[in-house]
Amino acid sequence: MTRTIVASATKEIIIGFDQPFCVIGERINPTGRKKLAAEMVAGNFETVKKDALEQAAAGATMLDVNAGVTAVDPNATEPALLVQTLEIVQGLVDLPLSIDSSVTAAIEAGLKVAKGRPLVNSVTGEEEKLEAILPLVKKYDVPVVAISNDETGISMDPDVRFAVAKKIVERAMDHGIKPEDVVVDPLVMPIGALGDAGRQVFALLRRLREELKVNTTCGLSNISFGLPHRHGINAAFIPMVIGAGMTSAIMNPCRPQEMEAVRGANVLAGTDKDCMTWIKTYKDYKPGEHAAPAPVAVTSPAEGAAAGGRRRGGREARMARG
Amino acid sequence: MTRTIVASATKEIIIGFDQPFCVIGERINPTGRKKLAAEMVAGNFETVKKDALEQAAAGATMLDVNAGVTAVDPNATEPALLVQTLEIVQGLVDLPLSIDSSVTAAIEAGLKVAKGRPLVNSVTGEEEKLEAILPLVKKYDVPVVAISNDETGISMDPDVRFAVAKKIVERAMDHGIKPEDVVVDPLVMPIGALGDAGRQVFALLRRLREELKVNTTCGLSNISFGLPHRHGINAAFIPMVIGAGMTSAIMNPCRPQEMEAVRGANVLAGTDKDCMTWIKTYKDYKPGEHAAPAPVAVTSPAEGAAAGGRRRGGREARMARG
Repeated sequence: MTRTIVASATKEIIIGFDQPFCVIGERINPTGRKKLAAEMVAGNFETVKKDALEQAAAGATMLDVNAGVTAVDPNATEPALLVQTLEIVQGLVDLPLSIDSSVTAAIEAGLKVAKGRPLVNSVTGEEEKLEAILPLVKKYDVPVVAISNDETGISMDPDVRFAVAKKIVERAMDHGIKPEDVVVDPLVMPIGALGDAGRQVFALLRRLREELKVNTTCGLSNISFGLPHRHGINAAFIPMVIGAGMTSAIMNPCRPQEMEAVRGANVLAGTDKDCMTWIKTYKDYKPGEHAAPAPVAVTSPAEGAAAGGRRRGGREARMARG
Repeated sequence: MTRTIVASATKEIIIGFDQPFCVIGERINPTGRKKLAAEMVAGNFETVKKDALEQAAAGATMLDVNAGVTAVDPNATEPALLVQTLEIVQGLVDLPLSIDSSVTAAIEAGLKVAKGRPLVNSVTGEEEKLEAILPLVKKYDVPVVAISNDETGISMDPDVRFAVAKKIVERAMDHGIKPEDVVVDPLVMPIGALGDAGRQVFALLRRLREELKVNTTCGLSNISFGLPHRHGINAAFIPMVIGAGMTSAIMNPCRPQEMEAVRGANVLAGTDKDCMTWIKTYKDYKPGEHAAPAPVAVTSPAEGAAAGGRRRGGREARMARG
């Protein structure tokens, strides 16, 4: 059984086929968040702290930490900023972290300060990347996300993406890294642009699990890019990828609809033992009581989901009416 | 490619692996609805009419019609009542119907009056049932739901359930009925009572699709029996069974959360061409506008879903805040 172990100073998490889906909180990432980038550059980490606490409260399994503020010279500035961000986050929450950077020096700097066993995000099938990142992964004995593209870009052919993943796993083994420490991202395309994107990724996930026997992840919300009501697409995608064998995703744990899909799929995949997490989270959920929910300010997963209160009715209401 | 054709007087629907999921509306069923049963016995079909119109408006693909009012002698009373109910429903809506009864005489009476190509619900693997129902299915050239239990009851062993399904398909062929006209119900157990119920049904669905190459259905809400917030479990189950190959379900189309899961899974399975149904249904869905949704009275799929309005926020809101 494939088991990828990640850990903070005090908490160990297993990513695996028989484990609850691993939700990697995506919020601490200034890429595309200009105000957050400006804050971080100015040494203001209030949003980072808020995002760390909120994601932990919402039920994230681990947190991705990115400090890519797109400075003029990321090689010079990003290592120190990533270190500072990691230290702040691990000082606040006890979740394992994912060190997310495209700058090798930043990843190494992060590895020096991160406690426990962080996940490195990421390596690709590009030669230069493989030879820069894999030695660090080996040196620090940590797992790594392997994104299935290479010098030629992202192939539209899933067989090519599988071959790239296989190449990375094999190269990792050459470096003395076990396949269970490679978490493959098969790359999720927007379904609105590529109608076959869902079926491609489901087939790829199955092969990655059955042939390569690796854990898997993805940037989940890519699937719904460009479509209306993206959370509805994401919430349908989550049970489908879990059913196809995906074991983690980089996503926003502060979205109750998506987290409900994760919890429901865990129940159905048999990784929420005796449905305990589901029952604990939703035991007070009463559809009939929320005909006109109050404005939502998410304070806990249970409250958030309940306050999202869908429609009145349910079988009970119908029975009374019928 | 397996294609099960059902039809009303004016509308033909294909159930198949390459088709949008077939939602069989379950509402017109007095079993367990005492007030509805009393109404129907008294010749009052107002609730039946309302349920027919509401389910059609909510996006049902076809409607199940059951008249099991649990009279003292169902063999004497149910045929006439089922005929009357079918005639009222097919006079109101143009959806194909499913003739649902455990009384053979009622099924035959229904087949005589139903227009188009109705679905017979159901036959089991019991000898007496097989020899009562299959000749009718052949005579009227209609498809039939095959429930995978037999004289010994419902087996907890999925291999036995598969074997029963196989036996029914083979017996149907002996009667000159094509396998594509047998829609297998693998039987869904409550996940709260049987933690393996999800994995069992996913594995069974895959075998039914790949080995028997038949269409499949189930009583969907069984899965969540006994758990809190059942709609959340149902909404996670739908994408998982669609991903595993299920092509229809008997369910309540008036539940926006479940129908959203069906539409999302259709997009992801590639059966909602160019995402047209999704876009049409949710194009005006604005998460930020529905912080305090009005009480929901479903009048159309789009409105129902929008009014269900989950939480404020979304990336846009976060970007503004960040």
